[in-house]
Amino acid sequence: MAHIGKLVVCGVGLIGGSFALALRRAGAVGRIVGIGRRREVLERACALGVIDEIAEGWADALDGADLVLLAAPVGQTDAILAAMAPHLRPGTVVTDAGSTKRDVVAALRSHLGGALADVVPAHPIAGAEKSGVEAAFAELYMGRKVVLTPLPESRPEAVQKVRDAWEACGANVVGMTPQEHDRVFAAVSHLPHLLAFGLVDDLAGRSNAPLLFSHAASGFRDFTRIAGSHPEMWRDICVANRVALLEELDAYLGELARLRMMLVEGDGDGLEAVFERARRARNAWAEGLPIRTAE
Amino acid sequence: MAHIGKLVVCGVGLIGGSFALALRRAGAVGRIVGIGRRREVLERACALGVIDEIAEGWADALDGADLVLLAAPVGQTDAILAAMAPHLRPGTVVTDAGSTKRDVVAALRSHLGGALADVVPAHPIAGAEKSGVEAAFAELYMGRKVVLTPLPESRPEAVQKVRDAWEACGANVVGMTPQEHDRVFAAVSHLPHLLAFGLVDDLAGRSNAPLLFSHAASGFRDFTRIAGSHPEMWRDICVANRVALLEELDAYLGELARLRMMLVEGDGDGLEAVFERARRARNAWAEGLPIRTAE
Repeated sequence: MAHIGKLVVCGVGLIGGSFALALRRAGAVGRIVGIGRRREVLERACALGVIDEIAEGWADALDGADLVLLAAPVGQTDAILAAMAPHLRPGTVVTDAGSTKRDVVAALRSHLGGALADVVPAHPIAGAEKSGVEAAFAELYMGRKVVLTPLPESRPEAVQKVRDAWEACGANVVGMTPQEHDRVFAAVSHLPHLLAFGLVDDLAGRSNAPLLFSHAASGFRDFTRIAGSHPEMWRDICVANRVALLEELDAYLGELARLRMMLVEGDGDGLEAVFERARRARNAWAEGLPIRTAE
Repeated sequence: MAHIGKLVVCGVGLIGGSFALALRRAGAVGRIVGIGRRREVLERACALGVIDEIAEGWADALDGADLVLLAAPVGQTDAILAAMAPHLRPGTVVTDAGSTKRDVVAALRSHLGGALADVVPAHPIAGAEKSGVEAAFAELYMGRKVVLTPLPESRPEAVQKVRDAWEACGANVVGMTPQEHDRVFAAVSHLPHLLAFGLVDDLAGRSNAPLLFSHAASGFRDFTRIAGSHPEMWRDICVANRVALLEELDAYLGELARLRMMLVEGDGDGLEAVFERARRARNAWAEGLPIRTAE
């Protein structure tokens, strides 16, 4: 792979910091420059050896940059792109790590319209219990998936540069359209988060909440683990991807209406058939076996 | 505590087998007799040292028995009680390990109406990934909760015998009415199971199921872990507790309707407030801190 002479990471937290650490460990990068909202975060990133220096501004950051990773919460994308656009020069490849892609692509088109050949949106499917640069580690992306959603305008060389960088981090790179990405992740990630947040909020608002929580056990713990996720990040994801998320929510409400009718009718056979199908699919998935398409 | 001279376990699987192993390890039991649907299971239980002998039938099992634990799936309760009732003698205490309590209490009243002074329904809040007697282990109940739902007729000495047995297993015993039990577990256990089964079934039935599952990650894994639970057991629980479960499902559907409206309106502040409240409650619970009652 081509060496990245100068890497710029905008938003040096768990995601951006781990990308920097992984590339450095792979010997794939020269100098790593950080930029972001909060000076103290960047200073900690320097002290921890995650970045080499702090950019004074976008002009400074983009001067001679080979690759820029945008890794701030997606709600900040517009403001970041507006600030960086005037200083972006041909040959600097721009990618991102946002959990939604249609809104990021729209923002990229609106702000970097003249530079789309060097723009390659992406989404690493990785996270950890903790966030922030202190939680960053070089192995975060080992064996994890990264979805690239290149634009029709993206140059093959730019796509390759982003692919090489993620593969140097140990990730498996796959491609999708932004539309496909947002539909898939609405189903397998954004909806489950919404459902878990909703269940905990529902119970926490009851007058007997202490009694309820005191009897919750390991099933509840696992089901609601994602309700401990970052509210601002998930607000941004839900709002950005609300069209696809509403479609998934409505499909799920249809499923719940069917289950509700089985409960009303005491239809044990119907419930068992649903549970059996779900268990079979879930266990096959957990064991890495192929999931069969519904007949 | 009073020693249990002869213990009868009906249904020697994970739950019944672990109860037997724990009492034996505590030196709290003399002879352990197993009874159940399938001879080969009882023979394995003997071979594993979980029980000492296999009863030839209920007359044999109940002869001189101090304590009977019913630990078969709740759907079999009626048939089991009908078979055992003619052979039950005064002084033998009967308890169970069913996940629902109102239906078990109704069955106990209907079949053991003359012996209710010695009947103490219960529910150990414990389980494991695997089921069956091979999965049984003496430490299953260490530090776990066991809910007793004594009847108005239950003698204090019978309640104490059941409490002593569970405490000898290392469990923390609490008391509730059967109604309260079923409402609490509908909220913190039965509804989450229904929701997880429903989500996996919804996705598994799509034409693009293989694509969806191939991008599911750790959040999905935890959220859906309980969708790998036993379909027959959960069918019985859902049917037995469907009144309380329907109340919980309807409350949750109200919560989802509110979240849906926030998505439709792009109400990021509203979503963030829900997510923040959920995260605070979930993290407090996970850290063992008190859950505050809603203002």
